[in-house]
Amino acid sequence: MTEFTTARPFAHEDVSHWDLETDVAVVGFGASGASAAIEAAAAGARTTIFEMGSGSGGASALSGGEIYVGGGTDVQQAAGFDDSVEALEAYLLAAGGPDADAAKVGLYARESLNHFQWLKDQGVPYKGTFVPGKIIEPETDDTLIWSGSEEAWPFSEQAKPAPRGHVIQHMGWGGGRKLVDILEAKARELGVDVRCDARVLSLVVDRSGAVTGLVVKIDNKPLFVRATRGVVLCTGGFCMNQDMIRRYAPEALRLSDPIGENDNGSGILMGMGVGGDAIHMDQFFTTCPWIMPPSLVKGIMVNQRGQRFINEDCYHGRVSRTMIDQPGDRIYLLADNAIFERPIDLARIEIAAVGETWEEVEQELGMPEGTLAATVNTFNRYAAEGRDPIFHKHPQWLKVLDDGPFVALELNFRDSYFSFFTLGGLSTLPTGEVLDSAGKPVSGLFAAGRATSGLPRWGHGYSSGMSLADCTFFGRQAGRQAAASADALVAAAE
Amino acid sequence: MTEFTTARPFAHEDVSHWDLETDVAVVGFGASGASAAIEAAAAGARTTIFEMGSGSGGASALSGGEIYVGGGTDVQQAAGFDDSVEALEAYLLAAGGPDADAAKVGLYARESLNHFQWLKDQGVPYKGTFVPGKIIEPETDDTLIWSGSEEAWPFSEQAKPAPRGHVIQHMGWGGGRKLVDILEAKARELGVDVRCDARVLSLVVDRSGAVTGLVVKIDNKPLFVRATRGVVLCTGGFCMNQDMIRRYAPEALRLSDPIGENDNGSGILMGMGVGGDAIHMDQFFTTCPWIMPPSLVKGIMVNQRGQRFINEDCYHGRVSRTMIDQPGDRIYLLADNAIFERPIDLARIEIAAVGETWEEVEQELGMPEGTLAATVNTFNRYAAEGRDPIFHKHPQWLKVLDDGPFVALELNFRDSYFSFFTLGGLSTLPTGEVLDSAGKPVSGLFAAGRATSGLPRWGHGYSSGMSLADCTFFGRQAGRQAAASADALVAAAE
Repeated sequence: MTEFTTARPFAHEDVSHWDLETDVAVVGFGASGASAAIEAAAAGARTTIFEMGSGSGGASALSGGEIYVGGGTDVQQAAGFDDSVEALEAYLLAAGGPDADAAKVGLYARESLNHFQWLKDQGVPYKGTFVPGKIIEPETDDTLIWSGSEEAWPFSEQAKPAPRGHVIQHMGWGGGRKLVDILEAKARELGVDVRCDARVLSLVVDRSGAVTGLVVKIDNKPLFVRATRGVVLCTGGFCMNQDMIRRYAPEALRLSDPIGENDNGSGILMGMGVGGDAIHMDQFFTTCPWIMPPSLVKGIMVNQRGQRFINEDCYHGRVSRTMIDQPGDRIYLLADNAIFERPIDLARIEIAAVGETWEEVEQELGMPEGTLAATVNTFNRYAAEGRDPIFHKHPQWLKVLDDGPFVALELNFRDSYFSFFTLGGLSTLPTGEVLDSAGKPVSGLFAAGRATSGLPRWGHGYSSGMSLADCTFFGRQAGRQAAASADALVAAAE
Repeated sequence: MTEFTTARPFAHEDVSHWDLETDVAVVGFGASGASAAIEAAAAGARTTIFEMGSGSGGASALSGGEIYVGGGTDVQQAAGFDDSVEALEAYLLAAGGPDADAAKVGLYARESLNHFQWLKDQGVPYKGTFVPGKIIEPETDDTLIWSGSEEAWPFSEQAKPAPRGHVIQHMGWGGGRKLVDILEAKARELGVDVRCDARVLSLVVDRSGAVTGLVVKIDNKPLFVRATRGVVLCTGGFCMNQDMIRRYAPEALRLSDPIGENDNGSGILMGMGVGGDAIHMDQFFTTCPWIMPPSLVKGIMVNQRGQRFINEDCYHGRVSRTMIDQPGDRIYLLADNAIFERPIDLARIEIAAVGETWEEVEQELGMPEGTLAATVNTFNRYAAEGRDPIFHKHPQWLKVLDDGPFVALELNFRDSYFSFFTLGGLSTLPTGEVLDSAGKPVSGLFAAGRATSGLPRWGHGYSSGMSLADCTFFGRQAGRQAAASADALVAAAE
């Protein structure tokens, strides 16, 4: 055997023997892979998961275990929110940006309640309680939170707002580990064959371009695996692959804290290597947890020119992503004495200047006269009237910043904590079928989660829970479609 | 033969006979293709150009025929400019953005003078004269102009400024047609076989992954062409392919005036189909010719929030690209009576508001009080001191805007003339060899010009003449490398 790269496929006709045979081969054991495996196995397919790490998890296990669902869940109803499929769909479309995937959004919106039930059926517990306010994740084991920009302009005008972040019952942050554990248990219960420390080296493709299996390295030996019904790539994004970041999403080079484990882009590269189209590769999510404590949301943000740039009551990730669009390498969050509290240590946000007047703060930051102070004065004048005609911050977050002393907190792209992960990936149908650049499915190849460009495909529109929603729901579709594909082939041949 | 797509290659072993044989097959007959063909033929390779249009041209023929060269050309010297290889290299690196290609930039900077001589050797005429001032292209047949952001902050601090736009001797705009005609004549003189109305349908690839030829449709029949030394893709970008724009560069969906002829991305797709890596696909150049008349450069630009966003003395394309980053769908260019002149009709820039004071203009535009007028007032205060500490506009373009009446001109992304073309494309070595995502050359495949991500790979750094510089210079490298590759193979085998 000659050398391997993950991008170039191995030729089917060069496989002298298959070491393993399965129906559906799932690559990667995060939430996407687990969901795909569960559905494939439940559909009666022999299913094998190959995970390069020594256990399940992936980036999903690093998350809060929060899933963006709506359309009127029992939890939403109990908390008095009247959500609808239409409102969910409208929000997801707006959040999907200039190329939102209307087909995926529509399907997800219609199936969201069923998907929530499916999660419960797998054993994922939800306490059923709502936590009001602007938080990142519950500190408790509560369920429902506002996890996006639903109440913030312009989304509030585009879709009727409702909270949709549904968090697994788990005390404190980090429920993602528990979510994956539950899905793993279910997969194992269904007889899924799990191979860990198993790094997939390449896909195997036949002369027609169909994916017929894969080559995986286990115990330092390459094994040839025949996947009779298809391969499902659930390998995550590429935030840990500095070279891919440079080529495809160089703006993210400015950020130092990838959220990922083995998110090296290998699945995206393998998919591309067999003709899969990778789209929106420049997109990424980023956030700095600057809204802790939430009183700081009543502050205003300015760039290094002293200009505001967004309504600060948007989802913290949208605000953070917009920070990266600003010139320079830092942003200032301005607070007065009434709202100031120290940001959490995790955020690595430092005090850059303090003053008795905003002019003093401006001067201490070395900004020209008439920049920062003028911005605050204009903001204050309108805030006193309970409005923000320039950036449309919701009145509930408006406060005249006139209670000195005043402070400028510095969010520095290099030194503060800006976590990020990538949103670009393989182009897929709602069924998980990977498309080539002509829009045709690559036979035998499926993908889900951050190896694809899915529901969350626009950094400025991301909301918490959107990626896990995409991973679990479209992981399921991919697993089910893969399991069904042999039957379809048989049916077609008859 | 089964169905064709441009993305999926045809299998070499399925070719029953070759209709044509050549050494180097060049796809596309713009400046890149012509330059590649000239070098390939000059190196003794049988060279065939396949052009889908009915004659040479491509987007090159729609251009001004301006080439970004420097390092101390005779024209620069005659005009009293002391340029250097180092300054050229530093500028190109800065203009290349966060992933500037240091290898290409370095080679181009070192070879720039030789390349200018080569252009002259092909018969491209240059009058040798310099036109001062801020213009888009000479109205005359003069040569040298300031064609980028060299004198504007921050570039002026990163590289010693010099004008480097060298325009073919041609009366008025549109010298690109003449440039391609001259290169075409040279190619034909060297015996290049030119096939027009010849649409390449797919590459042919052997089992090792090497490109061995192509399939081309001529007279409505598919012909199999063996290219013994390689295929050179010179097919341009994808600004005419709405579907690719949507998937890869959706921000450009807001722009309505692509500069292109057959720039449908087919070469990029074919390259991707054989494993070529397409990078920085989100990047595009755009410009609205708002600097005609140039007195308007003394105006200032504000977004719909009344904020300035750039030093307006940057290259018009950099200013225009930064406009697209602003929220909303339009930008206002503010002028007073002293500098106001009607923009050229081509630009489709209309007057949005007029007032005796800036407050009146602000109000007429429906902007909240304390936005636009405050911005102008702050600008004016510093301009009176001859400085712009916020945006660093060069003093030569600073003017206090206090000579009423005042006007706000509207640059509307949908209605004004925002031309654009794409900058993302195949990843190539300076030799033109197409790289796969693992950074290895795809054997037998070369590319140049806007089918690649070249010198101009960052919309915010584009300068006039950069694309034609890239097309002609790296077209030459690709043609030469392709012509030499068979010899290299023979040498390796011996």
